[in-house]
Amino acid sequence: MYQKKTDLALETRELHAKKGVRDGIRTEERTENGVKVTVLRVDPDGEEKAGKPAGTYVTLELGRFWGAGGTPGAFADAAGVLAKELRALLPAERGCVLVVGLGNERITADSVGPRAARGVLVTRHIRVLDERLFESAGFGELAAIAPGVLGQTGVESAELVRSAVGSVKPCCVVAVDALASRRLSRLATTVQLSDTGICPGSGVSNARTALTRESLGVPVVSVGVPTVVDAGTLAYDLLEEVAEREGRENDLPLYETVVERLLHGIGQDFFVTPRDSDAIAAGAAKLISTGINLALHDKLTPEEIADYLSTGS
Amino acid sequence: MYQKKTDLALETRELHAKKGVRDGIRTEERTENGVKVTVLRVDPDGEEKAGKPAGTYVTLELGRFWGAGGTPGAFADAAGVLAKELRALLPAERGCVLVVGLGNERITADSVGPRAARGVLVTRHIRVLDERLFESAGFGELAAIAPGVLGQTGVESAELVRSAVGSVKPCCVVAVDALASRRLSRLATTVQLSDTGICPGSGVSNARTALTRESLGVPVVSVGVPTVVDAGTLAYDLLEEVAEREGRENDLPLYETVVERLLHGIGQDFFVTPRDSDAIAAGAAKLISTGINLALHDKLTPEEIADYLSTGS
Amino acid sequence: MYQKKTDLALETRELHAKKGVRDGIRTEERTENGVKVTVLRVDPDGEEKAGKPAGTYVTLELGRFWGAGGTPGAFADAAGVLAKELRALLPAERGCVLVVGLGNERITADSVGPRAARGVLVTRHIRVLDERLFESAGFGELAAIAPGVLGQTGVESAELVRSAVGSVKPCCVVAVDALASRRLSRLATTVQLSDTGICPGSGVSNARTALTRESLGVPVVSVGVPTVVDAGTLAYDLLEEVAEREGRENDLPLYETVVERLLHGIGQDFFVTPRDSDAIAAGAAKLISTGINLALHDKLTPEEIADYLSTGS
Amino acid sequence: MYQKKTDLALETRELHAKKGVRDGIRTEERTENGVKVTVLRVDPDGEEKAGKPAGTYVTLELGRFWGAGGTPGAFADAAGVLAKELRALLPAERGCVLVVGLGNERITADSVGPRAARGVLVTRHIRVLDERLFESAGFGELAAIAPGVLGQTGVESAELVRSAVGSVKPCCVVAVDALASRRLSRLATTVQLSDTGICPGSGVSNARTALTRESLGVPVVSVGVPTVVDAGTLAYDLLEEVAEREGRENDLPLYETVVERLLHGIGQDFFVTPRDSDAIAAGAAKLISTGINLALHDKLTPEEIADYLSTGS
Repeated sequence: MYQKKTDLALETRELHAKKGVRDGIRTEERTENGVKVTVLRVDPDGEEKAGKPAGTYVTLELGRFWGAGGTPGAFADAAGVLAKELRALLPAERGCVLVVGLGNERITADSVGPRAARGVLVTRHIRVLDERLFESAGFGELAAIAPGVLGQTGVESAELVRSAVGSVKPCCVVAVDALASRRLSRLATTVQLSDTGICPGSGVSNARTALTRESLGVPVVSVGVPTVVDAGTLAYDLLEEVAEREGRENDLPLYETVVERLLHGIGQDFFVTPRDSDAIAAGAAKLISTGINLALHDKLTPEEIADYLSTGS
Repeated sequence: MYQKKTDLALETRELHAKKGVRDGIRTEERTENGVKVTVLRVDPDGEEKAGKPAGTYVTLELGRFWGAGGTPGAFADAAGVLAKELRALLPAERGCVLVVGLGNERITADSVGPRAARGVLVTRHIRVLDERLFESAGFGELAAIAPGVLGQTGVESAELVRSAVGSVKPCCVVAVDALASRRLSRLATTVQLSDTGICPGSGVSNARTALTRESLGVPVVSVGVPTVVDAGTLAYDLLEEVAEREGRENDLPLYETVVERLLHGIGQDFFVTPRDSDAIAAGAAKLISTGINLALHDKLTPEEIADYLSTGS
Repeated sequence: MYQKKTDLALETRELHAKKGVRDGIRTEERTENGVKVTVLRVDPDGEEKAGKPAGTYVTLELGRFWGAGGTPGAFADAAGVLAKELRALLPAERGCVLVVGLGNERITADSVGPRAARGVLVTRHIRVLDERLFESAGFGELAAIAPGVLGQTGVESAELVRSAVGSVKPCCVVAVDALASRRLSRLATTVQLSDTGICPGSGVSNARTALTRESLGVPVVSVGVPTVVDAGTLAYDLLEEVAEREGRENDLPLYETVVERLLHGIGQDFFVTPRDSDAIAAGAAKLISTGINLALHDKLTPEEIADYLSTGS
Repeated sequence: MYQKKTDLALETRELHAKKGVRDGIRTEERTENGVKVTVLRVDPDGEEKAGKPAGTYVTLELGRFWGAGGTPGAFADAAGVLAKELRALLPAERGCVLVVGLGNERITADSVGPRAARGVLVTRHIRVLDERLFESAGFGELAAIAPGVLGQTGVESAELVRSAVGSVKPCCVVAVDALASRRLSRLATTVQLSDTGICPGSGVSNARTALTRESLGVPVVSVGVPTVVDAGTLAYDLLEEVAEREGRENDLPLYETVVERLLHGIGQDFFVTPRDSDAIAAGAAKLISTGINLALHDKLTPEEIADYLSTGS
């Protein structure tokens, strides 16, 4: 069976529902300030059935916050909801939070993580250099790194993060990454938060690449935005829809062969993106860094945060 | 019938062949230094049948010249063949050539034109300021502009080009643009040259947007590289292949509906690109600017050109 | 006598005052919303004495609007004052305004013009494509180009602007450029507006490079921000100060020789810039594009303008 | 006495010579393929007199390698000499080398380190994933990181490097940084190599910021290129020259006051740079990454290295 590529728990859920799989995932929906919020919970003993690590997955459906499609103020509203949901996943005790921007800044669709890390207001060094100033300003304590990708550094980003955690000793890690979705309509309109951590790149988790509480020794909250749809997944969804419509499900293996040959014959992955994928990546990164800043510097106004940022080299 | 998007005469030809349409296009194939060169000729009285403006279309199938997929020297060979074929399309008399980089530099897949225009060695001003130096250096006379796109400037790029032609008075225009292909395998591996000029953006030609001898008053040679595949076209090709394989061509209209809904329901175009589309755009622009430099500064060595360029800015 | 480099009328004035030269420039000072505004007027028959073309020069001393040095809202206030003063210099009749971003986007200190041109909300094409939408939205009519510099295009930017004016037929041109100042304290803290037009690059005006009502046939309002101080000018000011303090003015020629040898012996110009010159150029461009947008789209709120821009490209 | 800012041992030497200070630094000069190479040696017991850590300082005076000022091939020659001198400073045993690009990629003059780190051919991961391929290709083992600066990350870059060294376990570190010089003529024309390591940012070494064998536990070779001249240093050199020429050394304290007020009154540092500082930073980064690649991948040809790089990221 064709392995559909999605990083969204919500879509895994949809696939299960469609196949009638009883995955034991508990679902709860609500609306926050006009944003649809879906919370999925996987129990520790339900990981296998769910096909997802145990934990909480929060999906925000924000619509097109980053462009003029949205109403005025859409961006600010989206950032506010993101900040609130993010705070709810962070540990109660408030020490230093290490923001990790995963991905390759040189590849547009993969640049959300590094760009978001550059957009947060870091303050850990201020505390080190001038505790008084730090306290009086009302900062949260925040550090941020963009470890790059294996092809750039020769080192697994997870290894670099683990060693950075060793020297920064944060109370938790917030890992930002670009995701793959099954639906074009989700590109830069959906944000997924999770307390389960993440695995950069391939969905295949392993000790070497995982960014989890187990591998890092501190809680890991992930924040991700879909920026691409895997072309094979989209094509296969398309064929599946046609097959069902005609009651020819038994042709699916054949279709699969066609997709394989057409898309993967060339020996590299292809993605489907909208024309303005550059604007999408920039907008998504801005939203996430803004949401993180509001969540962690909750004693500052958005204007104060903007002013501090505008001097940052 | 679904309108498949391709800017390549070669693919229009393929579509005709497949449907058994006799389009009257004369075809000639040869190999230059390992590069497959296909020349298509449309006669003045054959435009309608051919569905393409009368003129010569030269397609170079270069393979993956821009990466380590290729053998060492692949890039230099590709640039050499491109330069040779380009020279053959340029007017014999050698006055000033105006290179026009079409497209939006801020959108990766659309940035090949502006990037190529920035990469050519411009010399027109040297002739104006110091004819002696110009002659002794053995320069060809070259000017280059990147007029931007309608959304950036509020002015049709063709209008800006026409007015620039009025003040620069070149002997011909070389217009560089990013193209859409039907085949993923052609992305950044194929270059199309033509003496028919081009229409930026939409394939629909009209006086306002056309860059042709008619609209500019000087010969226009186009140089284009496919950087994207229209997602709808790819999906439809896929379904068509399935339908034929099953002798269900009469289902095609249904398939078309599915593609429409899946891809265009969201109200914007989607493209299929490889993961490294940024590297592809950079590589394609480099190839084209190098090819143009070799073609027009044919008294200089590649090293001399590189040295002159390195002081540019 | 060493030719001090400044593009600011205010500084030319200072030099005159210091030397006791009676330059006939009429001066008026006021404060707008906390911003010091100085208006200098040169009469048509006073050009020679003034050493400046006849017209009005408005200097805004904004302080460090672009960083956290400023109070919250400093940027918005600065943009508001800039918009008001700019409107006062524009022709009463409101046709299409062509914004011209002068300079080389690839050179940080010279990139303010092109960046500002990319940051304005262009609408001319909307009027062409959909007059109704244009009217109902309450847009001003705006087009924008960044013609590049001689070394990039081989064509004088003034030539390209003149030809663009021919096809766009604007009611006036707003030309944005980076300036040189004598004072480090003015870098990205001062904006000069003028109805006299400008000469890109060298201060030496001539038919080929001038952007004036005479050369373009329409009114030209210039907007400039100092981003560099000429190192020679700074050094010479320094020596002059020392000489005066010691009553050794007769040593000035000697000092001049030293400056010449130290700075210009290497055969290129040097500039003095603060460490964060990249942030300065970005901030100055943002201020100018915001000011232009507010001045020309005066029926829109800043939020509406931001929303329209966020879909741009 | 004004503290002149220079990161070049050669210039420290000059200052000593001028003042007649006997600093005990041993000097040796030679010419390699047209490049002037100066080797300075500071003995362990001579650190105080020398005012520099004990070790070897190699200065290459390359001239304007990065532009058309140079003869054709100037760049290749410069890279070759750099590679040879670098190899001589590296430990004999050949394990993994960790390249560290210090500085802020967002500030042109400070971006040489990060850019150089992005330009090296990293191979450590290939060895991990496919030892056979690694051996057969003849790679050297290389990893590279760009830890960013304190203001971006909230963490001392030295801390991040130390923790990365802990997980990568390299046989040595090659640290690349932009330097400050006293002489405009040295900008992007001089390279300094040293086996003493470096201190990012401030010249003041301390455990927290030092990148040395002591702080990292492995040998540290530094590679630096001057990209800026401190404006105060330049101005003071200028005044000093004038004072000496007139035998008024006793006025120097006065001059110092003037420099202070003119340059530092505004409360930030200023630098002197040539107009094309962006091209300089790019050229210097290219030279260093090329030199490192040639030194560490010494079984590969420059063409092979270029081909591997072109697929990178």
